[in-house]
Amino acid sequence: MTDSSTNMRLKLPIVCFILEIILIILFGVLVEYDHDTDARDFHNMSHHDYENDFYYRYPSFQDVHVMIFIGFGFLMTFLQRYGFSSVGFNFLIAAFSLQWATLMQGFFHGMHGGKIHIGVESMINADFCTGSVLISFGAVLGKTSPIQLLIMAMFEVTLFSVNEYILLSVLGTKDAGGSMTIHTFGAYFGLMVTRVLYRPNLDKSKHRNSSVYHSDLFAMIGTIYLWMFWPSFNSAVTAHGDDQHRTAMNTYYSLAACTMSSYAMSALTAHDGKLDMVHIQNAALAGGVAAGTAGEMMLTPFGSMIVGFLAGIISVLGYKYLTPVLEEKLKIQDTCGVNNLHGMPGILGAIVGAVTAAVATKDVYGEGLHDVFPLVAEGKREASVQGGIQAVSLAVTLGIALIGGLIVGFILKLPVFGAPPDTICFEDNIYWEVPGEEGHNDELTTIRTEESEKLNA
Amino acid sequence: MTDSSTNMRLKLPIVCFILEIILIILFGVLVEYDHDTDARDFHNMSHHDYENDFYYRYPSFQDVHVMIFIGFGFLMTFLQRYGFSSVGFNFLIAAFSLQWATLMQGFFHGMHGGKIHIGVESMINADFCTGSVLISFGAVLGKTSPIQLLIMAMFEVTLFSVNEYILLSVLGTKDAGGSMTIHTFGAYFGLMVTRVLYRPNLDKSKHRNSSVYHSDLFAMIGTIYLWMFWPSFNSAVTAHGDDQHRTAMNTYYSLAACTMSSYAMSALTAHDGKLDMVHIQNAALAGGVAAGTAGEMMLTPFGSMIVGFLAGIISVLGYKYLTPVLEEKLKIQDTCGVNNLHGMPGILGAIVGAVTAAVATKDVYGEGLHDVFPLVAEGKREASVQGGIQAVSLAVTLGIALIGGLIVGFILKLPVFGAPPDTICFEDNIYWEVPGEEGHNDELTTIRTEESEKLNA
Amino acid sequence: MTDSSTNMRLKLPIVCFILEIILIILFGVLVEYDHDTDARDFHNMSHHDYENDFYYRYPSFQDVHVMIFIGFGFLMTFLQRYGFSSVGFNFLIAAFSLQWATLMQGFFHGMHGGKIHIGVESMINADFCTGSVLISFGAVLGKTSPIQLLIMAMFEVTLFSVNEYILLSVLGTKDAGGSMTIHTFGAYFGLMVTRVLYRPNLDKSKHRNSSVYHSDLFAMIGTIYLWMFWPSFNSAVTAHGDDQHRTAMNTYYSLAACTMSSYAMSALTAHDGKLDMVHIQNAALAGGVAAGTAGEMMLTPFGSMIVGFLAGIISVLGYKYLTPVLEEKLKIQDTCGVNNLHGMPGILGAIVGAVTAAVATKDVYGEGLHDVFPLVAEGKREASVQGGIQAVSLAVTLGIALIGGLIVGFILKLPVFGAPPDTICFEDNIYWEVPGEEGHNDELTTIRTEESEKLNA
Repeated sequence: MTDSSTNMRLKLPIVCFILEIILIILFGVLVEYDHDTDARDFHNMSHHDYENDFYYRYPSFQDVHVMIFIGFGFLMTFLQRYGFSSVGFNFLIAAFSLQWATLMQGFFHGMHGGKIHIGVESMINADFCTGSVLISFGAVLGKTSPIQLLIMAMFEVTLFSVNEYILLSVLGTKDAGGSMTIHTFGAYFGLMVTRVLYRPNLDKSKHRNSSVYHSDLFAMIGTIYLWMFWPSFNSAVTAHGDDQHRTAMNTYYSLAACTMSSYAMSALTAHDGKLDMVHIQNAALAGGVAAGTAGEMMLTPFGSMIVGFLAGIISVLGYKYLTPVLEEKLKIQDTCGVNNLHGMPGILGAIVGAVTAAVATKDVYGEGLHDVFPLVAEGKREASVQGGIQAVSLAVTLGIALIGGLIVGFILKLPVFGAPPDTICFEDNIYWEVPGEEGHNDELTTIRTEESEKLNA
Repeated sequence: MTDSSTNMRLKLPIVCFILEIILIILFGVLVEYDHDTDARDFHNMSHHDYENDFYYRYPSFQDVHVMIFIGFGFLMTFLQRYGFSSVGFNFLIAAFSLQWATLMQGFFHGMHGGKIHIGVESMINADFCTGSVLISFGAVLGKTSPIQLLIMAMFEVTLFSVNEYILLSVLGTKDAGGSMTIHTFGAYFGLMVTRVLYRPNLDKSKHRNSSVYHSDLFAMIGTIYLWMFWPSFNSAVTAHGDDQHRTAMNTYYSLAACTMSSYAMSALTAHDGKLDMVHIQNAALAGGVAAGTAGEMMLTPFGSMIVGFLAGIISVLGYKYLTPVLEEKLKIQDTCGVNNLHGMPGILGAIVGAVTAAVATKDVYGEGLHDVFPLVAEGKREASVQGGIQAVSLAVTLGIALIGGLIVGFILKLPVFGAPPDTICFEDNIYWEVPGEEGHNDELTTIRTEESEKLNA
Repeated sequence: MTDSSTNMRLKLPIVCFILEIILIILFGVLVEYDHDTDARDFHNMSHHDYENDFYYRYPSFQDVHVMIFIGFGFLMTFLQRYGFSSVGFNFLIAAFSLQWATLMQGFFHGMHGGKIHIGVESMINADFCTGSVLISFGAVLGKTSPIQLLIMAMFEVTLFSVNEYILLSVLGTKDAGGSMTIHTFGAYFGLMVTRVLYRPNLDKSKHRNSSVYHSDLFAMIGTIYLWMFWPSFNSAVTAHGDDQHRTAMNTYYSLAACTMSSYAMSALTAHDGKLDMVHIQNAALAGGVAAGTAGEMMLTPFGSMIVGFLAGIISVLGYKYLTPVLEEKLKIQDTCGVNNLHGMPGILGAIVGAVTAAVATKDVYGEGLHDVFPLVAEGKREASVQGGIQAVSLAVTLGIALIGGLIVGFILKLPVFGAPPDTICFEDNIYWEVPGEEGHNDELTTIRTEESEKLNA
């Protein structure tokens, strides 16, 4: 089932070893413990152990970590014969991306005497950047080799860091949960890559591009973990105190409302009035994406629920009506429908963030305004200007994602990365040793033999 | 396989949309951030970020959240053809219930100037109330439509909040882990509902009312998560400091002892001396339920282990001998055996709590008595009276649960909610688009065809 | 399929009840709440709630708990017909071991007026000790009865505690994440046990000693959870503040680098250049094991990545080339390959720890030296001596593990514990009621019947 070009015997080890050795060297040269991680530095000052940033953020970090490795990994196991690749390639490219992101984000977020300082916050940010790569992975799922995915990750992490730098450091944009930097960026980057990698004959693998009963249950593990821990995701790097608290709560209510509208829309649009697992697995999460920018603001649970409610509706409608159009008219083969889960809800989240920022007042935020909108609190910027900047940031993100995806897509088209042929997409067997199924092949063989013997007798 | 009455095309969207829109309006009118969540309020006072309640409770909240959505959801996937519904309806009614519970509990726990104040503690309480609904779901699993479940949730959350108000606010009962308020209430409410919904011809679906190999493994995911995080469940809303610490530890040892006795009893009662997955999946959790009331008290690990040990024995005996009797004699069709996992262990927990409260002394608790039994510490109530009140609370809970379940059961009997017919219970296909299985239907078809051709030749 | 000797009807209940009753009595006599768990003690002193050790360690504890019950349990479900036993026996022996470990470790770590004081730190240590037992379980997986496993756990916990006492208390060794005390000890103890239990005719069960598609996916749940939470494992009992922070971060980077080298080596060594699930499920974790001793030291992310990188390579090479040799030449039947995941990486971790300790300086650690190397900081020991002691500790650990495993192996050979016969190893059916599979047995039966009828007609 494997031809020589997709054989990973030498290609994958070479790429992995080269990338990892480069990473190790760069870490040796550039990376240092930050103040709260270094034995000497932390003990140098008189502060209490409980003030170490570890205790503010590590539980959130672990929740984010679960979303990245279990959430994204298992969400993509819905395909009937692509579970090993979904979890396994997710694992590989995430392990690479978080190391590379540490360097790229450290470089752009500001060096300290030529060194990158790292701690739990940089670990969360590295996981966030990795999340963006995994969103793009969802768009090309089943149609790419692990080498293509590593190359894509390398470029995407870099461009993600550039975009994040422009937004957070240059423009002063607020985007704690990454509606723009993570979701919108990852989705449209991935959609552009899959557009460039368009396969006109993909229907040769169509019979494997669907789920089976148990693969849908495995995927629900991913869905539920993403859903549960999204409050931690959006609140992981906000300011300490009420900011983390409020962000988690806003996200919690946004997701709950989104689940209600997703079920409603799924029944309404699916034929026979039966619920569709694709909608439940994906659309119910759109509320977390859409609360990614405004979640830390004084959005109120009321506002959060409206946002989540709309996100669920948009997402199901996207799966039902937009995805087929994108594939037929625009030749965008979006395996997981990341446009519906991350793309459109990300844009919604960016717009909600811009509006919420524009109406922020000292009266509502009090002294907390310094945490959420420091430039506004210091009088350097009007709230309405902050809102405008937020909107501009969405446009910047879309621009960098689409242009970046276009270029990277063409790089990935180079015929040396071992992409699967059109006839063997969505199939683990091409890159993995795959065992039989439940021993029932044996049973089938037994039947065949028995029946043959009877016939021959 | 679907007739028109079970078609969810319009019914489910209408119910979901109406409920969610009502929720959003009520949240808009009634709900506000609490002191630790509000930007202005939290910054108004001079306190440190690490004193924000978020850091005391959010890790516990996330553990509880996992129990509600993964724990309960996957525990019920043991049925061979009901995995989508188990996880999926669990997801839907939990998302609804936690919103509705925020309002109901906020209303009863005391308004602040006409407003409900919410934060991480109210989020945990909403999840707790949701847990009670999911226990009742276990009793009617496989025999109800999603609309029936939403209606049931609406009434049950309301009655739960009334009962909780009477116990915690009126009577001054202690029940941090909810042996009474959550487990006893949820179990007997659900048992009464399933009694009213009795189906004499349920044996028409009997062949689907059992597990298969992989469905039992999926269910173990639910079991293990419930087991691991039960210490967080029982300690999530106790007082800060030693109280949370002690409650978690008591629960940990209760569960460990319960697991030992559950395995012992499973081997002893099952035929051939083989272990029964039903017991392991359920009875091993009874130790968490039974430590729900006394867990925060000075029960000691020794006491906790005795409680867990007994809970495991009672639970397995219930599955083995009581459940068949309940079904045959009392016409209570209890799909998951919630009487054995939540009902009887909940009553045990309530009794243990009453006894432990009755013997509480200032000598043992020191100044900590204010945290655990404030009325006793303030001299307003004797410890023995507190014990008596605890016992009365069990009776109140049973009364409200049974009467409430009776009424709600009759409401759910109205023939407009799309309940499945007796022949299609325990079957995902009636409410979900269900894919094929592992492609082996194709193989079977192939064999059939091949053999037919041979026969015809 | 069961003969009388493997029937657990009486044996298992007797063993479980006796063990648990002994545990309960000993807890009643010996165990007390520690200062941070006791209501009176904690309120006696004037300190803040947030200084309670619960808030420093409980999130880590829960992550470790997930590794023990989900991580180890599901990692071993890779066998096609041993999922119930893998998760279920893991559950049973862990529940027993954590209770027994509380007593053993409490006894050796120092009694307080004849009492063992327990709290969240002792809970973590009990889980750690349990982890060691579960590693040994991996070596004998599929070839032992639950009674043998409980007996093994009883002895292993005891010897673990002796070894841990010698290292941590007598020698002053540092081993926060247990490269030596947990991984090396558990692996070589288990390897010696499986050597003594050598079955020359195990190939009679060979057809079940392999995975199927979905069992490999279940196993990946275990792998990913172990991988994600390993930073919590290694940092769970280090000193507060920068120590926990640094340990978690070192482990995170070690694991990421290890994943890269594991994938590379898997493709390089597997035939056809296809990735092998065995390597991904196991070798990618070796980086956590190898960072178990030095993780809390100033290893730097750079050093951590080198360690992880090497661990992945060693581990895959072990699975590919060493495991078959061990089985053929040394008659060590190591079902899960614990030598490759825990044994050799544990030794690597011990060596790295010795070297890192030997080069520790006040200049690098500052006042933090008191946390990591108290004896060196107090001038009682040179850093180089500490390094030497670390190396000696590895030898001590190997010695106790091998001799202990030898003795316990012979005890387990006594023919009264209901071990499975050679023909029914790796099979749930011998100790569990096992349901059919996905109803397709019915379908196969139907086909058989239909075809037979045609043939007879």
